Amino acid sequence: MKVLLASGKSAGKRYIDAVDWRLQEKIPEPVRDEKVEEIHPKILKDESIELVFSALPGSIAGDIELELASAGFFVFSNASAHRMDPDVPLLVADINPDHLALVAHQRKSRPGYIVTNPNCTVTGFITGLKPLDVEFGINDVVMTSYQALSGAGYPGVPSLDIVGNIIPYIPGEEEKVESECKKILGRISESSIEPSSVNVIASCARVPVRDGHLESVLVRPKSDASLEEILKAFYLYKSKKSEKLPSAPEKPIIVTEEKDRPQPLFDIYSGSPKRAKGMSITVGRIKKIGDQIRFFLLVHNTIRGAAGCTIMNAELAKLEGFL
Amino acid sequence: MKVLLASGKSAGKRYIDAVDWRLQEKIPEPVRDEKVEEIHPKILKDESIELVFSALPGSIAGDIELELASAGFFVFSNASAHRMDPDVPLLVADINPDHLALVAHQRKSRPGYIVTNPNCTVTGFITGLKPLDVEFGINDVVMTSYQALSGAGYPGVPSLDIVGNIIPYIPGEEEKVESECKKILGRISESSIEPSSVNVIASCARVPVRDGHLESVLVRPKSDASLEEILKAFYLYKSKKSEKLPSAPEKPIIVTEEKDRPQPLFDIYSGSPKRAKGMSITVGRIKKIGDQIRFFLLVHNTIRGAAGCTIMNAELAKLEGFL
Amino acid sequence: MKVLLASGKSAGKRYIDAVDWRLQEKIPEPVRDEKVEEIHPKILKDESIELVFSALPGSIAGDIELELASAGFFVFSNASAHRMDPDVPLLVADINPDHLALVAHQRKSRPGYIVTNPNCTVTGFITGLKPLDVEFGINDVVMTSYQALSGAGYPGVPSLDIVGNIIPYIPGEEEKVESECKKILGRISESSIEPSSVNVIASCARVPVRDGHLESVLVRPKSDASLEEILKAFYLYKSKKSEKLPSAPEKPIIVTEEKDRPQPLFDIYSGSPKRAKGMSITVGRIKKIGDQIRFFLLVHNTIRGAAGCTIMNAELAKLEGFL
Amino acid sequence: MKVLLASGKSAGKRYIDAVDWRLQEKIPEPVRDEKVEEIHPKILKDESIELVFSALPGSIAGDIELELASAGFFVFSNASAHRMDPDVPLLVADINPDHLALVAHQRKSRPGYIVTNPNCTVTGFITGLKPLDVEFGINDVVMTSYQALSGAGYPGVPSLDIVGNIIPYIPGEEEKVESECKKILGRISESSIEPSSVNVIASCARVPVRDGHLESVLVRPKSDASLEEILKAFYLYKSKKSEKLPSAPEKPIIVTEEKDRPQPLFDIYSGSPKRAKGMSITVGRIKKIGDQIRFFLLVHNTIRGAAGCTIMNAELAKLEGFL
Repeated sequence: MKVLLASGKSAGKRYIDAVDWRLQEKIPEPVRDEKVEEIHPKILKDESIELVFSALPGSIAGDIELELASAGFFVFSNASAHRMDPDVPLLVADINPDHLALVAHQRKSRPGYIVTNPNCTVTGFITGLKPLDVEFGINDVVMTSYQALSGAGYPGVPSLDIVGNIIPYIPGEEEKVESECKKILGRISESSIEPSSVNVIASCARVPVRDGHLESVLVRPKSDASLEEILKAFYLYKSKKSEKLPSAPEKPIIVTEEKDRPQPLFDIYSGSPKRAKGMSITVGRIKKIGDQIRFFLLVHNTIRGAAGCTIMNAELAKLEGFL
Repeated sequence: MKVLLASGKSAGKRYIDAVDWRLQEKIPEPVRDEKVEEIHPKILKDESIELVFSALPGSIAGDIELELASAGFFVFSNASAHRMDPDVPLLVADINPDHLALVAHQRKSRPGYIVTNPNCTVTGFITGLKPLDVEFGINDVVMTSYQALSGAGYPGVPSLDIVGNIIPYIPGEEEKVESECKKILGRISESSIEPSSVNVIASCARVPVRDGHLESVLVRPKSDASLEEILKAFYLYKSKKSEKLPSAPEKPIIVTEEKDRPQPLFDIYSGSPKRAKGMSITVGRIKKIGDQIRFFLLVHNTIRGAAGCTIMNAELAKLEGFL
Repeated sequence: MKVLLASGKSAGKRYIDAVDWRLQEKIPEPVRDEKVEEIHPKILKDESIELVFSALPGSIAGDIELELASAGFFVFSNASAHRMDPDVPLLVADINPDHLALVAHQRKSRPGYIVTNPNCTVTGFITGLKPLDVEFGINDVVMTSYQALSGAGYPGVPSLDIVGNIIPYIPGEEEKVESECKKILGRISESSIEPSSVNVIASCARVPVRDGHLESVLVRPKSDASLEEILKAFYLYKSKKSEKLPSAPEKPIIVTEEKDRPQPLFDIYSGSPKRAKGMSITVGRIKKIGDQIRFFLLVHNTIRGAAGCTIMNAELAKLEGFL
Repeated sequence: MKVLLASGKSAGKRYIDAVDWRLQEKIPEPVRDEKVEEIHPKILKDESIELVFSALPGSIAGDIELELASAGFFVFSNASAHRMDPDVPLLVADINPDHLALVAHQRKSRPGYIVTNPNCTVTGFITGLKPLDVEFGINDVVMTSYQALSGAGYPGVPSLDIVGNIIPYIPGEEEKVESECKKILGRISESSIEPSSVNVIASCARVPVRDGHLESVLVRPKSDASLEEILKAFYLYKSKKSEKLPSAPEKPIIVTEEKDRPQPLFDIYSGSPKRAKGMSITVGRIKKIGDQIRFFLLVHNTIRGAAGCTIMNAELAKLEGFL
């Protein structure tokens, strides 16, 4: 069984009336006319539900998600409220799958648990960093972003602010990139994550593009790497469990050697069409400059960067026996 | 006296028919209907002309500018052909005015001379770096750009390539940023410029904005600087000779402390309206991160970044007695 | 003396904090830091003010403007609330100046009066129709619009709705075009306006352009007109009193014979720079098709189409002795 | 067997090197690396080919298509060169299928034949007009367009001309709309088409949208029609042979009753996903105004408006035994 839940404002409406549907794909028929209920653990109990996906606004997610976990539900959340909680995994299933083990620790203090996925910018960023961190270690990273409008939600950015313009500021974003990145690259101990020592400097800007965060990245690795080794690290990176996760891409990273790619308009859906569209990042313009590694990466911010990642995380939990 | 010159393709046409005028301001009446002549030293001689402004395409500028200098003309060029010639100043009059002295060396081998100004991205970039270089010295700089459409000329970027998109590649741009920057920050000797030892890493992208190159900059200074000292360096930077150059801005750098600025749409004309509009850069989001300095800067790429700089350079030459 | 008034939400703030300033021009220094007061007739009395400019939201303008007029103030309003009131002039000072006389009738029932100006789309539209109506009479008009983002106010249209898109619907707009147009072209009687018999069909769409409403217009005149006569009507149209109104343009209509103009980006400020910028419309692509007249017109929707018109109307009232 | 042909400029290249691929979908693998040959009847003979699809530039299509038809090939062309030839069908297979019969007449004078499809704007327009013409007859139509960038080909419109702008002029477009429309609605005689007497007035503009021509349409029908009858005409329109044409949509017209649709961004692929995507137009904002009918329609200009129509026409020829 499944139910659609929302805050009181939307409760009682049909799904199509409660959402501002702004995708080119039509709203899926099976949920289009379904009634939205007000969030309450009791409703979930009545429906014999165990698994909850949360895309609540940050302001209310904190309390509700805790309440749900305390009531015994397994919460997979795209909200930022609990990302930095010590015992909550900040998970990208094909990047740091071992962090999921934290939920066992959570369950010592409550019957359910919370699993979060990172900010949309971070999900792409960390996917590009992971193979380099595995192969060479990373001392420093400088990241500058070109972030799409859909990352701000709806109604989000007023058109008068962004048509023909760039806004070099996204509230709270640079701080999230820095802290979430260190947690995801960190090492799991019994009850928490020891953050990575990597230095991250992020500069974030909004651009007039619908979907797809583009990021310029400069990495100073711990051990020296030849261009050939770098390319190999990107080309071969693969999560062992991907094949068993229906929403995981065959390869989290698609490498393009075209000189002017990746581009949001043409590359957000790159990757194998056999698996979920929009779940791979694209890396291009890879160059060794001195002892540093420069590249651009592109992530579909609302698929791999949000809902797709939440689902893939739940699939991993299922595979690992936590669901 | 003055004449308008062009290649054979445009010769004989009225100015308005020879150009693709794409500015919001109307074409100036005094030149609108003037006839364009084919470039040839003889025409300039006949008209008793000494000073030549060149905005020729790179492919033909090389030979023609040399020919003109050899025929005794003083050439101020926005073209890239001679920027890296050892005895040609790569000049931004309110940044490295001492480099103009190279023209004296040029005149030992030919009666005229060539003065160039940098690439539009570099002109903004170097203006932001100069105060930091003067006050603290610079070891490393990482720059990532958001470059406007007008930087590519006309017809330039096809709309199908860029509407709703970002192109993370501009042919030759990153190389120009790196080499031109080192020359401008370099030290003049008798006959050439000893390039600065600064390490520059540039990543350049095209964005769907008409005018105004935005740049994210990260500087590692040689000596440590407090945020207060950094702000002071930006606020107080001023060229001694600016007041005597009609096209120079009162302050080459306008500092904004608003959290989401500079933005191309609103800040390309910042600076005192008493002097030439579009001749100051705007610097904002200044932050100290570890021992590094992060900021965004914005330059009007076709004014300070191109024609305005060429004219300001000629004004300096006049002031210094080279005209 | 002058005061800035607003609803309770903004009262007490500095002007710069109360507005969402979104113009390329900086906020004028004289009002930037001035305190905004809550609207109340008493404040105006205390300050010995007679003239009130209103740009209130439609929802509250109705009551407040009436209250002010009843308290003896002369209200010039850009709001829609009273536009269709029988004794309120719907005025464009250089198009239907005789309609101003209605204020004398208003003053029979209250000490002050209200003068409104039309919707931004209508102000441009009616300016293009007027010379044809004067010279040939008009039976039918079909108008299709391409309306700019600033016409929707701020925050207005979400960027996700309009970047790379067209929205063929603007709430209430087509109805306003039809009714306001008939009133402005109507004949004044002692106490009201007898609407014109012209048939107007309007189809309105929002486009991703910042400023400048473009309108495609097809007119069926009452008496036949040659192309030469049509052009002459447009070229020669002039309001007799314009010269005495500081904000009125020399010519309300600029005719362009370039085949691909007017264009919002290049023509919103066309007209003589000696008088107020943005106060003329531009008409182009004029063609006779059968017995009909086709043309495109462009109006700066926030200048002639809004604030500029309100001010010009007050200037006319001053000239006519109503202020 | 199949071959890819082009002018001498592209001959010898791989397909991927000969085209400027600018679609979000990747270039199809089966043709990606295939070699492009120079157009010549002999090559086609060698390959035992009968059917030729032509998307040649207008300037060269005229001669080559005639040459091919004279050599016995069956040419289905998206080029404009022969659209108005008396004995060449200007065909939209689910709108005027009976016009195909003209090819029999063509074959009296040459072994092959030419079938053309209309301009992309017309294909959408005529689809919206057809049901009204069938049910009520049409006296007059006024059409104003909002045309997408892809309609101009590649490189097409320079970004500096159209970002944040509207261009109210497309060379030759309004004339094509008027003449092609009359031919398609015309009546076939033995050897030619007697054009419809409908009066068409078209005003065409380019907008900064990638794909999807939006058109505002006003129809004056011959016999009066109630809104209910109009809606019924749109809803029920269907071509009898559609089911047998693999590329024809189930319904050429999708009616939307949402108040702000159709919109290019969201509706270009509307229609049944079982059949070819992008082959239906969407009609919305249908309104009766006096005795006229107003609506907006949207057509995917490169699918139904171009290549998709060419293919559907060939499918009809096959069905009718002409292939």
